[in-house]
Amino acid sequence: MNSPTRNTQIQLSRQRDGMPDLDDFEVHVVPTPEIADGEFLVRTIYLSLDPYIRKAMRGDHPGHAKLAPGEVIYGRAVCRIVRSRHADYKQGDYLVAETGWQNFAALTPKKVVQRIDPTLGPLSTALGVLGMPGLTAWGSVAHIAQPNVGDTFVVSAAAGPVGGTAGQLAKQAGARVVGIAGGKEKCDLVTRTYGFDACIDYKKSGWQDALAAACPGGIDIYHDNVGASLLNDLVKFFNLYARVVLCGRPADYHSGDFEGLSIGPIIGKRAVVRGMVVYDYEHDLARYQRVAAQLMREGKLRFKEDRVEGVESTPAHFLKLMRGENIGKAIVSVGPEKG
Amino acid sequence: MNSPTRNTQIQLSRQRDGMPDLDDFEVHVVPTPEIADGEFLVRTIYLSLDPYIRKAMRGDHPGHAKLAPGEVIYGRAVCRIVRSRHADYKQGDYLVAETGWQNFAALTPKKVVQRIDPTLGPLSTALGVLGMPGLTAWGSVAHIAQPNVGDTFVVSAAAGPVGGTAGQLAKQAGARVVGIAGGKEKCDLVTRTYGFDACIDYKKSGWQDALAAACPGGIDIYHDNVGASLLNDLVKFFNLYARVVLCGRPADYHSGDFEGLSIGPIIGKRAVVRGMVVYDYEHDLARYQRVAAQLMREGKLRFKEDRVEGVESTPAHFLKLMRGENIGKAIVSVGPEKG
Repeated sequence: MNSPTRNTQIQLSRQRDGMPDLDDFEVHVVPTPEIADGEFLVRTIYLSLDPYIRKAMRGDHPGHAKLAPGEVIYGRAVCRIVRSRHADYKQGDYLVAETGWQNFAALTPKKVVQRIDPTLGPLSTALGVLGMPGLTAWGSVAHIAQPNVGDTFVVSAAAGPVGGTAGQLAKQAGARVVGIAGGKEKCDLVTRTYGFDACIDYKKSGWQDALAAACPGGIDIYHDNVGASLLNDLVKFFNLYARVVLCGRPADYHSGDFEGLSIGPIIGKRAVVRGMVVYDYEHDLARYQRVAAQLMREGKLRFKEDRVEGVESTPAHFLKLMRGENIGKAIVSVGPEKG
Repeated sequence: MNSPTRNTQIQLSRQRDGMPDLDDFEVHVVPTPEIADGEFLVRTIYLSLDPYIRKAMRGDHPGHAKLAPGEVIYGRAVCRIVRSRHADYKQGDYLVAETGWQNFAALTPKKVVQRIDPTLGPLSTALGVLGMPGLTAWGSVAHIAQPNVGDTFVVSAAAGPVGGTAGQLAKQAGARVVGIAGGKEKCDLVTRTYGFDACIDYKKSGWQDALAAACPGGIDIYHDNVGASLLNDLVKFFNLYARVVLCGRPADYHSGDFEGLSIGPIIGKRAVVRGMVVYDYEHDLARYQRVAAQLMREGKLRFKEDRVEGVESTPAHFLKLMRGENIGKAIVSVGPEKG
């Protein structure tokens, strides 16, 4: 079915606001593209599903035009070059690249996010702990928040690859680390696998009391992965001069509406609120990968993937991510690692 | 009428939300208070009117309990000790103290905000450019924002003592300084007296285009004196990594409702948003006053007062401040500087 002459792709069937559903996507089988001079053909191995894709589909994410019906859905993947007409990109090279949701893509270097050193860790981690989510955590923890021994570091969406990695990095820096996640299964992952000191289930009543109990010295750093609504709830637990890293707001990705941040309490706490964008830290990716790979070998940096098989499974797996039901980094296993 | 045995005071007549009116206040003449051991009697000279008083009346400002009808309205003033039973506070000493809106007050040292060195500048400036408003500007500019040569520094409520001083300090640091104020008279004060490079009248249509034209290199620093609503309008003019000092939100002082800060654009600009509270910088007041007094002598730091005479005039002058109609620091001249 995934023979080199046939390419299965997921196209947008209709453009609309709000939470997407399966009818927004259509599976099409098309010929595998030819490549021109300067291009190379890649085969998708692991497709990454990420909250930003929802915004990108609507044209509301840097570098992504609004999709028209019939266009392939945006997405990054671990892929392998199977044929090349570009001197710097050789058959057999592993890349993270903007393949979209399909088996094969003809690419130019512009679509390459990074090259992969397959000795650093499992290939799929180039999409998670060793890729952009991990680098996002690194930018937040190592470049911005810089937790110290004794700081209490709180992170939302703690079961995900950004939050989970951020908390583990902060833990290595000596901080007390408390996660916030939705549901017992995610909270267990955060404490048992990632080794956080505590994880608060925000879907349980009384979660704010539980958070206060888990942060007896108050919150010094908050890494926000969800948006202003939760942040407004947390400010009362902040210590003076607390630092906040704003990292994304998937709660707002479905539409342009969102709750704003109440600035009165921010003033009262003299809090420092910073926006961050991972692209600013791409220059530091190699250093981060060396640090992270070493921590992984020592068992101090763990990750969790939520995988399905086959490109046709992508829309349903994406909707699961949109509903927050994935446990760990959402990945579609599309093709073989070799061959 | 202001004889030492009779004390005119302004009391709260009723406690309610929303914009106050004259009926919320009542003038009462009561005996001048006796002083006990450890107390001293002060005579109010210049009463300071400030936006925070509205919040303090409602019990929504640190250290101020909600006022009950019959209680004297909160307020700070330049005052002189006329009788003392405290060894450290001598007759004739000048203070800024929490007198409330009245001619005489029996105080303990707890109510003293600062002592005044009358050689530094005109006595009334202890309430403005040499007092808490000036120190607020100093905390923002010298401690937090630290503008550099070539930075564009934008400040709202630019005609007021905080904004006007902040802009003049930033100008001394080499920044291009652009004010935002309401109405031609305020804007003229900001450019002609304070010497800002430009001032934008936010009450005129097209003010955003005028601001963009006044900031051809984008905004590097924004000192916010008004709240999230204006800030949300300004983020699109920010340069990457712009710094914001949140300093107060008088637009929200009348009630608990307010517009929130949209965090998506803050993330996109990688902006750094910090809350500040002037009380954190009281340890630096003497140093600031030396710097500011020298700048004033050199004609590089100017101020403007909006004065009325007599404690009975206080409510109307306060309402003028609440409506934003004052031009410069709002002061009530209550008693003589000497005698």
